[in-house]
Amino acid sequence: MADQYAIPALRWEEPPEGPVLVLLDQTRLPAEEVELACTDASALVDAIRSLAVRGAPLLGIAGAYGVALAAARGFDVDEAAQALQAARPTAVNLTVGVDRARAAHRAALAGSGDAGQAAAAALAAARALHREDAEASTRMAGHGLALLDELLPGGGHRILTHCNTGSLVSGGEGTAFAVALAAHRAGRLRRLWVDETRPLLQGARLTAYEAARHGMAYTLLTDSAAGSLFAAGEVDAVLIGADRIAADGSVANKVGSYPLAVLARYHHVPFVVVAPMTTMDPRTPDGASIEVEQRPGHEVTEATAPQAPVTGAGGGTPVAPLGTQAYNPAFDITPPELVTAIVTEVGVVSPVTAQALADLHTRTRG
Amino acid sequence: MADQYAIPALRWEEPPEGPVLVLLDQTRLPAEEVELACTDASALVDAIRSLAVRGAPLLGIAGAYGVALAAARGFDVDEAAQALQAARPTAVNLTVGVDRARAAHRAALAGSGDAGQAAAAALAAARALHREDAEASTRMAGHGLALLDELLPGGGHRILTHCNTGSLVSGGEGTAFAVALAAHRAGRLRRLWVDETRPLLQGARLTAYEAARHGMAYTLLTDSAAGSLFAAGEVDAVLIGADRIAADGSVANKVGSYPLAVLARYHHVPFVVVAPMTTMDPRTPDGASIEVEQRPGHEVTEATAPQAPVTGAGGGTPVAPLGTQAYNPAFDITPPELVTAIVTEVGVVSPVTAQALADLHTRTRG
Repeated sequence: MADQYAIPALRWEEPPEGPVLVLLDQTRLPAEEVELACTDASALVDAIRSLAVRGAPLLGIAGAYGVALAAARGFDVDEAAQALQAARPTAVNLTVGVDRARAAHRAALAGSGDAGQAAAAALAAARALHREDAEASTRMAGHGLALLDELLPGGGHRILTHCNTGSLVSGGEGTAFAVALAAHRAGRLRRLWVDETRPLLQGARLTAYEAARHGMAYTLLTDSAAGSLFAAGEVDAVLIGADRIAADGSVANKVGSYPLAVLARYHHVPFVVVAPMTTMDPRTPDGASIEVEQRPGHEVTEATAPQAPVTGAGGGTPVAPLGTQAYNPAFDITPPELVTAIVTEVGVVSPVTAQALADLHTRTRG
Repeated sequence: MADQYAIPALRWEEPPEGPVLVLLDQTRLPAEEVELACTDASALVDAIRSLAVRGAPLLGIAGAYGVALAAARGFDVDEAAQALQAARPTAVNLTVGVDRARAAHRAALAGSGDAGQAAAAALAAARALHREDAEASTRMAGHGLALLDELLPGGGHRILTHCNTGSLVSGGEGTAFAVALAAHRAGRLRRLWVDETRPLLQGARLTAYEAARHGMAYTLLTDSAAGSLFAAGEVDAVLIGADRIAADGSVANKVGSYPLAVLARYHHVPFVVVAPMTTMDPRTPDGASIEVEQRPGHEVTEATAPQAPVTGAGGGTPVAPLGTQAYNPAFDITPPELVTAIVTEVGVVSPVTAQALADLHTRTRG
């Protein structure tokens, strides 16, 4: 259900020079809309590491296209797949997307022995994932809005969100943001509270950008100011995405999600996770088993504005004394007991238990 | 107990041209150590509003010197006092300091009728407050360290702090920071976790600066990453300062303190507030009665690094779409039931109740 405000985060093109994966460089938003054209998987790995392309569902789609790109350009597909999967450790979608395109490539190669047909099969797999993710967005938005209406019968939803979970992370309109957008379209979104999401400001730069384009009533705040909103009774529900959901329902998501879950519990506010089935990882048993990416300290010790001139070792303007060490986990883990519900494209899980998640997987496969 | 690392945040000078209040411009730290010379109360009001001088105890001292400056320079003392008190609404110390110098001025004027003697009395009152605050720091550090040793008998304290509470906010070594520094000197500080403290980064810019000067083991983190530290069991206690403590024990402090209090409670970690008696406000009955300053949205929507060139309406580099509205309270309120103890120069209050605080006031006056 794309509309004129949709922002294409990624597209496949086939100019005469050969296929390219074109990415909207999300590190430059909102100041500039600049595109990056990747002609090989290695360029895509760099783009994933620098967060030019980011967000769990989109990473899966990008990974699948990356395999297709390697195949179409005649590179070693297994090598490309390994490099892509290693680019970021926490989002399971990346692995899932890469595996899917690689499996299609392998099967076609085993069947026909033809490299061209195998490359076409990898591309078809990437396109299918892309399309399915868009459809999953639409379904999550529907299920999520129904859940909100059930949890908040009074209407006039005031939703707090963290990081960026809209069309910039998805083949469609996203995960948590898509639910807020559906509420907006239904006339029931009173306010979208947007956490700025330090250190990389995905909320300030990207969610505010998407909310502004859609004409939503939104207000930006520092991540810490969320506490004041809860205390003032200004938050009706928290909606976030996920980078990986373990078998027990533990949710890895952008650092800062867990404090919101604790605040939501303390204030009896629903804490809802919205994620496609590709984010579920039944092979990771629990939160402690999820590898949390540690990112460079200069993301914290230096200020980086998209168009600012740069001077520090990390490319930014120092805000802390030189030599300051930083603790900079990219994600945190919210245990299932703090999650009110998980919204997926196939339905809502609430309460969140290992059994309920296992049932969901069975239903999906069945 | 000042040492060679002490940073004079403020000093009174009397050059031939007339008295001046010299401030270290805290907005330029850590990049530059620049001083501002205020020759009248109006310049000081600007410095207070821009946060060139900040921190509850120091605001009280600055306010008292501001009254002395107005008196010495022959300005209207009552007018100057009113302007100073209105410069920032939340920190009660500012009002207390201004009132003290004004009362001394008034009493001397009523007694002698001599403007010069009255100005000298105002200055003497400011100097007395300055000295008493330094002494209060030393006593708070002693009481606070004893409390930590009692709460954490195993030693090896890992302390999380928020905002800046060291010698930059005090006539001495500060409040919460002074306790961490005492632990460091006693060899019992294993780690000082420094919240960066958005939006103005007082933790990254100022606390890291003070910790580095003292050779303390410190690590900087985004405010949201504190959740991950608690979850990992890496925080033994939280130590913060206060801008105003109501009669019921509600604590107004830098925005982001309340979420830490909720996290600390959820993880059974002590949450300790360190503040001099001048921060106690028995005339404000409870948290709901504390006026919380709302600061300009551009502090959130624009990135401001001390030495960065400026372009936005607020003087910074935009990080959010133009026109983005921001919710930007400077402080939040932590209710007494989440505060393990309040450390003052006259002793420790724990548990925090209205009666215990009233007893403390009685003891102080007695």
